[in-house]
Amino acid sequence: MKFVFAPDSFKGTLSSEQQIALLKQAAEEIFPGAETVGVPIADGGEGTIRAVYGTAGGRLKCCQVTDPLGETIEAEYLILDNDSVLIEMAQASGITLIPYKSGNAGKTTSYGTGELIKDALKNGYQNITVSIGGSATNDGGAGMLAALGVKFYDRNGKSFIPVGETLQEIERIDSSNLMSEVKKTSFCVMCDVTNPLLGSRGATYVFGPQKGADEKQLERLETGMRHYAALIEKICGYEVSKCSGAGAAGGMGAALLAFCNARLQSGIRTILKMVDFEAIIADADLILTGEGRIDGQSACGKVLDGIGFYAKKQNLPVLALAGSMGEGAETVYACGIDSIMTTQNRPMELEEALEQAEDLYRDAAKRMFRILRAGIAVKK
Amino acid sequence: MKFVFAPDSFKGTLSSEQQIALLKQAAEEIFPGAETVGVPIADGGEGTIRAVYGTAGGRLKCCQVTDPLGETIEAEYLILDNDSVLIEMAQASGITLIPYKSGNAGKTTSYGTGELIKDALKNGYQNITVSIGGSATNDGGAGMLAALGVKFYDRNGKSFIPVGETLQEIERIDSSNLMSEVKKTSFCVMCDVTNPLLGSRGATYVFGPQKGADEKQLERLETGMRHYAALIEKICGYEVSKCSGAGAAGGMGAALLAFCNARLQSGIRTILKMVDFEAIIADADLILTGEGRIDGQSACGKVLDGIGFYAKKQNLPVLALAGSMGEGAETVYACGIDSIMTTQNRPMELEEALEQAEDLYRDAAKRMFRILRAGIAVKK
Repeated sequence: MKFVFAPDSFKGTLSSEQQIALLKQAAEEIFPGAETVGVPIADGGEGTIRAVYGTAGGRLKCCQVTDPLGETIEAEYLILDNDSVLIEMAQASGITLIPYKSGNAGKTTSYGTGELIKDALKNGYQNITVSIGGSATNDGGAGMLAALGVKFYDRNGKSFIPVGETLQEIERIDSSNLMSEVKKTSFCVMCDVTNPLLGSRGATYVFGPQKGADEKQLERLETGMRHYAALIEKICGYEVSKCSGAGAAGGMGAALLAFCNARLQSGIRTILKMVDFEAIIADADLILTGEGRIDGQSACGKVLDGIGFYAKKQNLPVLALAGSMGEGAETVYACGIDSIMTTQNRPMELEEALEQAEDLYRDAAKRMFRILRAGIAVKK
Repeated sequence: MKFVFAPDSFKGTLSSEQQIALLKQAAEEIFPGAETVGVPIADGGEGTIRAVYGTAGGRLKCCQVTDPLGETIEAEYLILDNDSVLIEMAQASGITLIPYKSGNAGKTTSYGTGELIKDALKNGYQNITVSIGGSATNDGGAGMLAALGVKFYDRNGKSFIPVGETLQEIERIDSSNLMSEVKKTSFCVMCDVTNPLLGSRGATYVFGPQKGADEKQLERLETGMRHYAALIEKICGYEVSKCSGAGAAGGMGAALLAFCNARLQSGIRTILKMVDFEAIIADADLILTGEGRIDGQSACGKVLDGIGFYAKKQNLPVLALAGSMGEGAETVYACGIDSIMTTQNRPMELEEALEQAEDLYRDAAKRMFRILRAGIAVKK
């Protein structure tokens, strides 16, 4: 008997790794001697390269880069093979690298992520995947572009590196010094959001507040982003303002699309391909996944959707363990998930469920394995 | 594929029959074409003979009897075969037959149950099983004994039929006119409580309040019961005051033990034997049971314990669906229950869970069958 455990994190309570440890405990109790394989799933934010490294191996490369507020920090990227690397924006430009402070959304830069990309390009890697979740920035990826050689000039002809609140000061963008390696490199952006660059569903208004933008600053940031988008469209001929996903990571999506010809890809599909999930589950008997809350959104390109896709290719049963189910949860059945077990063992309020998350999870996992064992015992 | 559904009622929300209907719906959706058999489980109280009749068949006999407050009502008992009948105390002396009223515990009589027994005795049935749950009485079974010919005299030598509040007026008990058929008949009492007749864990103090005894009346009832017990012990030589279960049904247990030489038996084991549960599950693949709340008590002679006992004899898997789990719920695993699924699909308060009981139950049943199906799909 071989189980593969690939749960998404329960936001705020149990990480993917913690869940895997609990699932292993439960499986060993109910199916002694069973083989268990854990595949930690990161959602494209902080911890993504560590999760992939844990499963797929590779080599971590450490670089000195610029953090979101201009300090020097160490950040890693993951060398997967001779051709491919995985870069995690949260390593260099992540929201958790700096203390939360009102106004930060206008001051932070994606320059450090550009430095990571630059290092990879200089070392000749031709497939660069950038995971852009968990960013602190709203600079439209201008900092990243600057690190790769793009020049930004103000009305006085002075070169500068724009941040969110100075995007509107850009008079001219010159991409003639963009590293030549960019054109020869295949860029892939792991992105699970479909937000456009501008407007009420755009980068600024949706993600700005959590990055420390107040009401007044939001307007200024949106104006700057609109100005920036128009300039990009002029020099690249790429209509970033109409692109779904261009608003991811404070406009980082737009910059990578326009200047690096990047493809946007579902994070989970990319990760599962990177760790060769297909090979991992080849001789498995059952896959276990899950997320904190399963609802109608879970079927739309998220973890359960990706896991179900690979499982169904091999006709493998998949069970999902969830903290709660919301409206439309049953739609995941069409994605290849066979059933959902919830962690509650009685009526309880959310607060209690969160406090006891670990015990409830372990106990529910055991009961789920027990039901499974009963199914295996059925003769016909 | 054959499923046997034998759930206990969820007190206050879903009856055993309702659950069976929901389980059939769920099973038909997940296992189209599966054979399903429902075995409604009654807990020995109201509805017991109807539940047994539904599964085991037999013939219902209708009698005119005395209700707990002396009115004439119709009550049924179940003739199982040429030898055996099942009598349900709740039919004649049940708490739901009369409106709740303070003071009732002292005024109610078990006479009607005695009339049912008398009818069965007169018709020559030699195995009488009495299900004594759900009674309205605290008369120590004196009314029942009176119906069978036992005489009670007060200090003036006047014959009367004692109720709870007049037990202490009994001066003398004369059993010389007890129906002669009693001695030739095998009596079995279905009883799931172990309460003694007297004291703080006894009939009066534990069950009196729910039958309408107030604080002051409790003392009087207890004094009467103590007096009555002493008289019984004198004339029968049977120490009812030391007997576990003698306190069931307001002392009905004591009367049946002392005068009818009854055996006390677990209700669920008796019911399962009566409906020939062993034969029903002989070609089954899985049994589904459950109760509103599963906890450490569930393993002690209750429904899950009985179902698990029969299932393990045939090495059949058993799953339990519960509204909630309490402390010690896992002890049911030792009784032959393989796993527990709860109906909650997210953190919610009890009130919400009760309001949505039917939907939650149906959905949880489907998810449970889906996990089971995943187990069946496991190759090794």
